[in-house]
Amino acid sequence: MRELLLIGIGAGDPDWITLQAVGAIQRLDVLFVVVKSDELDDLVQARRAVIARHRSEPLRVVELADPPRPWRSAPDYDQAVARWRAERLAQWSDAVAAALGEGEVGGFLVWGDPGLYESTLAICTELVASAPNPITLDVIPGISSAFALAARHRIPLNRQGRAVQLSPARLLRTGMPDGIDDVVVMLDQHQVFASIDPTGLELYWGAYLGTPDELLIAGPLAEVRDEVLRVRTEAIARKGWMFDTYLLRRV
Amino acid sequence: MRELLLIGIGAGDPDWITLQAVGAIQRLDVLFVVVKSDELDDLVQARRAVIARHRSEPLRVVELADPPRPWRSAPDYDQAVARWRAERLAQWSDAVAAALGEGEVGGFLVWGDPGLYESTLAICTELVASAPNPITLDVIPGISSAFALAARHRIPLNRQGRAVQLSPARLLRTGMPDGIDDVVVMLDQHQVFASIDPTGLELYWGAYLGTPDELLIAGPLAEVRDEVLRVRTEAIARKGWMFDTYLLRRV
Ligand SMILES: C[S@@+](CC[C@H](N)C(=O)[O-])C[C@H]1O[C@@H](n2cnc3c(N)ncnc32)[C@H](O)[C@@H]1O
Ligand SMILES: C[S@@+](CC[C@H](N)C(=O)[O-])C[C@H]1O[C@@H](n2cnc3c(N)ncnc32)[C@H](O)[C@@H]1O
Repeated sequence: MRELLLIGIGAGDPDWITLQAVGAIQRLDVLFVVVKSDELDDLVQARRAVIARHRSEPLRVVELADPPRPWRSAPDYDQAVARWRAERLAQWSDAVAAALGEGEVGGFLVWGDPGLYESTLAICTELVASAPNPITLDVIPGISSAFALAARHRIPLNRQGRAVQLSPARLLRTGMPDGIDDVVVMLDQHQVFASIDPTGLELYWGAYLGTPDELLIAGPLAEVRDEVLRVRTEAIARKGWMFDTYLLRRV
Repeated sequence: MRELLLIGIGAGDPDWITLQAVGAIQRLDVLFVVVKSDELDDLVQARRAVIARHRSEPLRVVELADPPRPWRSAPDYDQAVARWRAERLAQWSDAVAAALGEGEVGGFLVWGDPGLYESTLAICTELVASAPNPITLDVIPGISSAFALAARHRIPLNRQGRAVQLSPARLLRTGMPDGIDDVVVMLDQHQVFASIDPTGLELYWGAYLGTPDELLIAGPLAEVRDEVLRVRTEAIARKGWMFDTYLLRRV
């Protein structure tokens, strides 16, 4: 058999890695590294550090150069995305077929948890389904940024007897989701929290969670909104990139 | 200073523990163990095994006998719960004040992640706020059963660009939540999935995730519903208890 492991490495603190992930890294024959044209240098470094720390035996590394994603403004955007997906799948499939031999274990390191706002799992599922040789796929869960956020603010994610929603920022453009008073927002490039009516809302914001650059701000949205915007802009100017997540809670 | 650590240990597989949690266990001077009248023996054993595996130095253990929670049918249920909460807080506060000396580190092991459907954090927050001596509180995130479920079924928790909700089963008694097509359901004692209109819904069900008794069933709700009910009943008869979680997904 051939094995493919999707290894969640946690969302920031190198100590958020699980023993299962460490064991998986030690079993790998080959590591697949997705190289995106817009990949963040700090995240590449973080993945390298994980390998350097937990892997003493040499490891074959295969880079998968991710084709650049079409721009939203591209003509025929939907078709362009479909083509881009197909191209990426073909490329990954070829690379895995070529590099993963009989009886070998291949793996991907995935930021946070592989099941949350990540495309690697979906691609690998397709890849495995159409692979010329049978490949088993396994997923190793990781500490997601949603839980990192709650831990660092020392708050429960849910309130007693209530639901909590995990959401991409895009869906909050028209305000808080219906019937939900606790939302963890990810992938926010447009500071959606600043355009939501702040009445009755609290914000628990965290950036670069679990790293030496971690930033935490919490308070009534109306009061802390401008501070978050300022701190966020300063941090981007200093570091060149931003990874933030926040909980909006109706009190 | 005094320190109190809430240590997430993951929701089943002993290898789901993080390096941060292992480090925290090794730093402890005193471990607080909540003893509930209805505590599950297997979970008590699981916590003991975690300590036995990661702790070689002796450790002071303080048991907190949790007062029995009032029955829902109790007269003045709300008042009874308020009294019960106050009693529990007083008891924990006294125990921590007595056992946690200056410069010492105390801790609680928490199943899964401390921020999801867990009361330990809320109680400790109150306890620390009213403690006679200053205590710092820290939370160590863990692999929650929601992510364990997704990993073991090898599925993403969310769909691309969409939100996902984590919910106690109670809130699904009237059906799927509004505007949400992906819900992870926890704390289901009444098999709510079986009373929901199954049209267009898929079920990804998991019990005893990450343990040797793990059970996984997935498929269209209409087709797998009866099988899950049967397997669930058999498992309860065999083991005497049940821990299950599932994702309902509208396709
Ligand atoms: C492509 S998603 C991947 C999420 C990841 N799979 C997880 O489980 O956290 C990236 C988003 O996760 C959030 N994120 C990841 N790591 C973070 C960190 N250390 N601090 C704050 N937010 C983070 C941000 O919202 C970011 O836009
Ligand atoms: C009191 S809540 C605690 C949740 C925990 N803090 C977490 O993060 O998973 C207990 C519920 O979690 C779910 N659960 C916990 N461990 C599980 C496991 N190993 N398999 C299936 N469900 C589990 C079940 O729904 C159970 O009713």
